[in-house]
Amino acid sequence: MNIAASMRRNENGISAALERLAARFGDRLQTGRALREQHGHTTTYIPNQAPDGVFFPETLEDVQEAVRICAEARAPIIPFGTGSSLEGHVNAPAGGVSFDMGRMKRVLAVNPEDLDCTVEAGLTREELNQYLRDTGLFFPIDPGANASLGGMAATRASGTNAVRYGTMRENVLSLTAVLADGRAVTTARRARKSAAGYDLTRLLIGSEGTLGVITSLTLKLYGIPPAISGGVCPFPSVEAACNAVIMTIQMGVPVARIELVNALGMRAINLYSKLDYPETPCLFVEFHGTETGVEEQASMFGEIAAEFSGGPFVWATAAEQRQKLWKARHDFYWAGFTLRPGSKALSTDVCVPISRLAECIVETEADIAEAGLVAPIVGHVGDGNFHVAVLMDTEDPAEMARVEAFVARLNSRALAMEGTCTGEHGIGQGKMRFLEQEHGPGLDVMRTIKQALDPLGIMNPGKILNLTGG
Amino acid sequence: MNIAASMRRNENGISAALERLAARFGDRLQTGRALREQHGHTTTYIPNQAPDGVFFPETLEDVQEAVRICAEARAPIIPFGTGSSLEGHVNAPAGGVSFDMGRMKRVLAVNPEDLDCTVEAGLTREELNQYLRDTGLFFPIDPGANASLGGMAATRASGTNAVRYGTMRENVLSLTAVLADGRAVTTARRARKSAAGYDLTRLLIGSEGTLGVITSLTLKLYGIPPAISGGVCPFPSVEAACNAVIMTIQMGVPVARIELVNALGMRAINLYSKLDYPETPCLFVEFHGTETGVEEQASMFGEIAAEFSGGPFVWATAAEQRQKLWKARHDFYWAGFTLRPGSKALSTDVCVPISRLAECIVETEADIAEAGLVAPIVGHVGDGNFHVAVLMDTEDPAEMARVEAFVARLNSRALAMEGTCTGEHGIGQGKMRFLEQEHGPGLDVMRTIKQALDPLGIMNPGKILNLTGG
Repeated sequence: MNIAASMRRNENGISAALERLAARFGDRLQTGRALREQHGHTTTYIPNQAPDGVFFPETLEDVQEAVRICAEARAPIIPFGTGSSLEGHVNAPAGGVSFDMGRMKRVLAVNPEDLDCTVEAGLTREELNQYLRDTGLFFPIDPGANASLGGMAATRASGTNAVRYGTMRENVLSLTAVLADGRAVTTARRARKSAAGYDLTRLLIGSEGTLGVITSLTLKLYGIPPAISGGVCPFPSVEAACNAVIMTIQMGVPVARIELVNALGMRAINLYSKLDYPETPCLFVEFHGTETGVEEQASMFGEIAAEFSGGPFVWATAAEQRQKLWKARHDFYWAGFTLRPGSKALSTDVCVPISRLAECIVETEADIAEAGLVAPIVGHVGDGNFHVAVLMDTEDPAEMARVEAFVARLNSRALAMEGTCTGEHGIGQGKMRFLEQEHGPGLDVMRTIKQALDPLGIMNPGKILNLTGG
Repeated sequence: MNIAASMRRNENGISAALERLAARFGDRLQTGRALREQHGHTTTYIPNQAPDGVFFPETLEDVQEAVRICAEARAPIIPFGTGSSLEGHVNAPAGGVSFDMGRMKRVLAVNPEDLDCTVEAGLTREELNQYLRDTGLFFPIDPGANASLGGMAATRASGTNAVRYGTMRENVLSLTAVLADGRAVTTARRARKSAAGYDLTRLLIGSEGTLGVITSLTLKLYGIPPAISGGVCPFPSVEAACNAVIMTIQMGVPVARIELVNALGMRAINLYSKLDYPETPCLFVEFHGTETGVEEQASMFGEIAAEFSGGPFVWATAAEQRQKLWKARHDFYWAGFTLRPGSKALSTDVCVPISRLAECIVETEADIAEAGLVAPIVGHVGDGNFHVAVLMDTEDPAEMARVEAFVARLNSRALAMEGTCTGEHGIGQGKMRFLEQEHGPGLDVMRTIKQALDPLGIMNPGKILNLTGG
């Protein structure tokens, strides 16, 4: 697959920028090979394209100054959180400078009365929740990885709690970003809603570093619910599990998490996490609320599951059991490798209207079997979003061709069902070829916006949009 | 107040556009004076600036063709829903053609399994709910007026249910809009979430017709809850009522509606709707859920209210009582006039972090008293959003100067409390002068986007942004 195509490098500009950054910031600009390669894409099979240097800003002003230096030299800037993105977002196909936000981790404010906080972009979601542990509040968005909050905003991340709490789109009240010319913009005030002008917050969420470097964010927080319960419910088939999900959503049961793992996925989880769940399609569910509310939700869900021959339910009520259950679910990416040791993983995601979910997953399972691939499925099915983790031998060109054709079919299938080519991973390099198919003329509108806000094309080039069209 | 300043008119272009539109669309272009004036701003004190013609498109293709005609002639286009906006959004300060979407009212699809529907932009929220009446589903966003759904998206409307269901920002899955060059763009697929490229949906929501004409929308729907209850709870002071709201939100009570009406507002409601509620600050609340859930919410709220000396609660459990209660609340705009017959109303809104709400309202009440104005207050206080309806004699320059100074202080007060100059009414003409104060450098980013997408400046000129800066 020609996913990480190289782009023309502005050698003189990059050298000039590195020289000026080193002169200004000393050893906060690093150019060692190992470090640079850690800042290229590392989490999946997409080839690593290391930046020419890694810069560690410590303040908003550092980011502004460094962006101005890069802009003057026309050197690419690649914002970097923790590097856990899956579609090549942090690669440097045209070279340039990685801006590692890992030293900007301050919690700037927590406002318990307003259920919000303001943090720097390098803070990770686990660090934030650790910081909040004595407040009774939490931040619910949880992509599998312990990603940085700035990176999560940049990729419009979601995760297992999105069905109840929404995604980064719904949970960022405001953010500050440094644009391609070094201007810092704070997109909104701290009010819960506003009708004051264009929604710059949402424009930057999901822009994957192509419009600016996010430096801080104001996030919604939630009270930790007084009661939480959940567990794992096996089903005789993927259809049965999906139909139970559809009915749960339709009935308005305010489930906090409802995750499908298919039979092969359950096998991987059992192997990796040394568990003994049934190896049939399972729903991992969790209910949040008052004691009474949680009991009522669990009972409603139990009736729905029974209607689709689901059960018996394996409950996890104690906090420790629950943590073990969700750790097993979040470790799914790593569990996949137990099915094919030594393989590399392509973790891809699509999202369809929930009425098409069963059909889409069943067709995809049949497609995987026919293509002779090893590829467990897991999904945030309350949103119609699912992942396929293709375990593959990247040294085998014939297998890679089969994988490429499978991924193209998966995306076409989702698009034909009025779905999207990515529910939460983003476009990066890996999904650019599906974006035109999804957006048609909308893609030109995105290009117009990109060119207006980054006329030199220095912000994370080669991601989301091919500026030359096509 | 110099709010509806005239702009330079392109007389030749406007004439040419009217001529071509008439030739192409016959009597679907109207130029009679009464109709034109109905399509200028009519709902408040901002002077009416009638368009030169009113065009009634019936299809997406009509809109595209007419936009191309106007673009070629450089004639302004003012999208028009029902004309219920409050900040001069539909005025034509540079003349031009009003696009009245009232003939585009088709329901294109209802997908009960996916809890969504696709409708044309001219359909009103009440018409949609009427259409859905046998499905068990409803669309919750309810600004007071029976506005068109396209207009509601364009102004990022919300209303009484927003505290639970969100605003138009959260409830539009996708929309189709015709841009300034006649291109039609559908911003997203029907999936519940997507990380595929820039969020064009949210860019158009709240753009007030300055980036394009919204022609259809895909909206989230909700199941009508099995149980609904609510009522009116009086409090000894605005502070007490606001503190009860803060605690309700903090405790995570999933209240569907929680509305403050101050003492003067209660008097207006009693007079207009012939009711006999206590004339002290009151909260109008409503709970949605299962029988058990609603009982639990009501009991939790009752305890909180009691803690702040609220009560006794006047319950409205029967559907008919509830409708009467909420009709009285929604008629608030009209009720205001009973306090000063013959006056005109300035209905303005701000929104602050909820921790500052009591302080902001109390200071505003004192300011109203000091300025000698008649101005009841009502608010979607669960979001920190409140409205002041200033009843005034627009023929009295001294009073108008006092009103202008009051509005400026109100907005400065909200901004100083990290709030926004409008929670839901939008900017239009009326709030342009506060937008710079709110957004600072963000305003230039908005201008860059506007100029990139509407280089001729024909889409609803003179709203949100002054393109010459300042």
